[in-house]
Amino acid sequence: MKKIITSVCLLLAAIALSAQVKEDFKPATSNQSNRQYPMVNSQRIVRAQVRATDAKSVKLDIGGVKYDLTNDGNGVWTGDSAPQDEGFHYYQIEIDGASVPDPGSLYYYGSSRWGSGIEVPAADDDFYTLKNVPQGEVHERYYYSSVTGSMHHCYIYTPAEYSANTDKKYPVLYLYHGGGEDEHSWAQQGRTGIIMDNLIAAGKAVPFIVVMDNSSDTYGPNRPRPEMPAFGGPRPQGAPGQGRPQGGPGAMMGGFDFASAYQEILEKDLIPMVEANFRVIGDAQHRAMAGLSMGGMLTHSIALNNPTLFAWLGIMSGGVFSVEEVAQAKGFRETNKLVFISFGSRELENRVMGYSDPKPINEELGKSGMNTVFYVSPDTAHEWQSWRRALYQFAQRLFK
Amino acid sequence: MKKIITSVCLLLAAIALSAQVKEDFKPATSNQSNRQYPMVNSQRIVRAQVRATDAKSVKLDIGGVKYDLTNDGNGVWTGDSAPQDEGFHYYQIEIDGASVPDPGSLYYYGSSRWGSGIEVPAADDDFYTLKNVPQGEVHERYYYSSVTGSMHHCYIYTPAEYSANTDKKYPVLYLYHGGGEDEHSWAQQGRTGIIMDNLIAAGKAVPFIVVMDNSSDTYGPNRPRPEMPAFGGPRPQGAPGQGRPQGGPGAMMGGFDFASAYQEILEKDLIPMVEANFRVIGDAQHRAMAGLSMGGMLTHSIALNNPTLFAWLGIMSGGVFSVEEVAQAKGFRETNKLVFISFGSRELENRVMGYSDPKPINEELGKSGMNTVFYVSPDTAHEWQSWRRALYQFAQRLFK
Repeated sequence: MKKIITSVCLLLAAIALSAQVKEDFKPATSNQSNRQYPMVNSQRIVRAQVRATDAKSVKLDIGGVKYDLTNDGNGVWTGDSAPQDEGFHYYQIEIDGASVPDPGSLYYYGSSRWGSGIEVPAADDDFYTLKNVPQGEVHERYYYSSVTGSMHHCYIYTPAEYSANTDKKYPVLYLYHGGGEDEHSWAQQGRTGIIMDNLIAAGKAVPFIVVMDNSSDTYGPNRPRPEMPAFGGPRPQGAPGQGRPQGGPGAMMGGFDFASAYQEILEKDLIPMVEANFRVIGDAQHRAMAGLSMGGMLTHSIALNNPTLFAWLGIMSGGVFSVEEVAQAKGFRETNKLVFISFGSRELENRVMGYSDPKPINEELGKSGMNTVFYVSPDTAHEWQSWRRALYQFAQRLFK
Repeated sequence: MKKIITSVCLLLAAIALSAQVKEDFKPATSNQSNRQYPMVNSQRIVRAQVRATDAKSVKLDIGGVKYDLTNDGNGVWTGDSAPQDEGFHYYQIEIDGASVPDPGSLYYYGSSRWGSGIEVPAADDDFYTLKNVPQGEVHERYYYSSVTGSMHHCYIYTPAEYSANTDKKYPVLYLYHGGGEDEHSWAQQGRTGIIMDNLIAAGKAVPFIVVMDNSSDTYGPNRPRPEMPAFGGPRPQGAPGQGRPQGGPGAMMGGFDFASAYQEILEKDLIPMVEANFRVIGDAQHRAMAGLSMGGMLTHSIALNNPTLFAWLGIMSGGVFSVEEVAQAKGFRETNKLVFISFGSRELENRVMGYSDPKPINEELGKSGMNTVFYVSPDTAHEWQSWRRALYQFAQRLFK
């Protein structure tokens, strides 16, 4: 009986503790300048506040859950979320049924919309924090695609030493976003420039160039959009991990071969533009491709479609290679220097039945003689903290 | 009597015509991809549409006026503005008293907030339309300021030929935003890169570099923010034009000398960073400064504080030089190659009593032997179309 009472007391104490919100909230670093809200506390609870004098209902919509905000009587609505994972999250505010960006946050492209995002502080956020180290640049550039007959938009990172060492040529990583994202994603919420500058300054990565393009921009006057549902719709964060994507090379997504559609632009327009305008070593041994989720599947497909184009491959949260696929892709094994596979730990825990477990597939690849690395981001899901950490790990292993 | 009836009929017909909205609305080019609303028609009327199923009131807030939207009964609210000026405008949506960004638009920094913006088509929009011409780049760069002890953020445009002509050095324009704006403003809504690429491709401008910095970022660990109201609050678009700003060199804005505060960063940190990292001709004859509104006053003050720093000056919508000021600034007359002054025509029409008329001041400057240009943007106010056109005019006259 005493044991039961103790257990009940412990349980009640745990419930009380879990309900206790620590009042150590600070404005999120992702806020607009001089905006106090949204805030985050040390429990990683997000507190939103919005002024809506005549509203009946205001909600914070984050991580797939809508949290009610409370009116203070003067039309200022405030409320808290449950604790969030470390790192970056998309969110919105719902005001009387309208889903709108929070006027307090900066805006990011993801889930097929420009909208609010929030940084939840992480124990390991040092690697993506802006510091006074030698600074590279992120170049914004438009280029003409002969395949689509239209102008495309991309970002290109060059390391700090690039402008001074005008005789030196550099290796290049082509780095891809997920579904419902675009070329802005790695450049902004991915923090690619900051991660690279910090890695290079610490001597952990060799200096290289990173190209961030929009792999969903595949139509134009020269290639009209087919009349079918387009791939690239909203993909909720925190969705169950996809151990192994459906489909091999040239996978049909929504009935359309999105990888081949983009591969033509990559080979005919993007790579030639990069190699004509930047000091690049233009061979497979100095060329890497990586991507997250849909970008991982893109990397998977393009690497198998053209096995001698990239020697270094990064597959983040979707797109794992099998031994059979590699065996069938002529020249892949001889060309490849690294297959890097990564997932958020929650993606592996929550793996949907029917998807294969990526870890044994990767181990099999390793046993077959490939240089493989399998990285798991602790306590994160299908979200940006997993992919920032994956880039941090992957970049240290490239071109060495 | 017949005459009176005719007059009344003509009047009624005119009212009916003016109320007639042409149904030739098209999605704004400033929309997020695949968003139909907001739209603009050939009368330059903006039509907004927002889904807010439980709202009591939804308004379109543009140009200082709030327009009621109407519920279709299913929670989809739609409504029109009065005709707007050609060009770019900041706007917001008001939902039951909450002022929020429109979920349909792209977002821009101005009026001291990231929020909605809309492009109203202009008869002359060709000069700022993206085309398949040789493309320059806009470089995003962080730099350390020894003055503030913090990292600053800027954009730097380089022309298309810059990466190929690795032995050539280029002149530089330092180009400044207005109050409540920052380094993003010229790079995004100002369309600096596109305007420059088009001008250079047409042979109308010599290739030069453009630096877009944030002149309001003047505090940090090494220079704490003084306890006084900071300058740079919201500045409504379409406000009465300011013919001649109050105050000369080192004007005190809100009790603080904002020009001197920034000048120290410009001279000690920004110009040295630019000249160390870009191939720049580092003398006054190849260095220009220009700015709009608060940026015009900044240009005015810094040019008089250090008259031998910039040979080419652009003053847009505020900051006109007088003959007396120039006479007192040692070396100004000998160094200067051009004083370019511009306004929107509505700024001159609506000049607030008490401000001096800029035109005679400029003419006096010209008669005193200075090379001056006075440009008036037709049918525009204190807004971005005036400043895009001013850049287009100014850039053609630089470094020649």
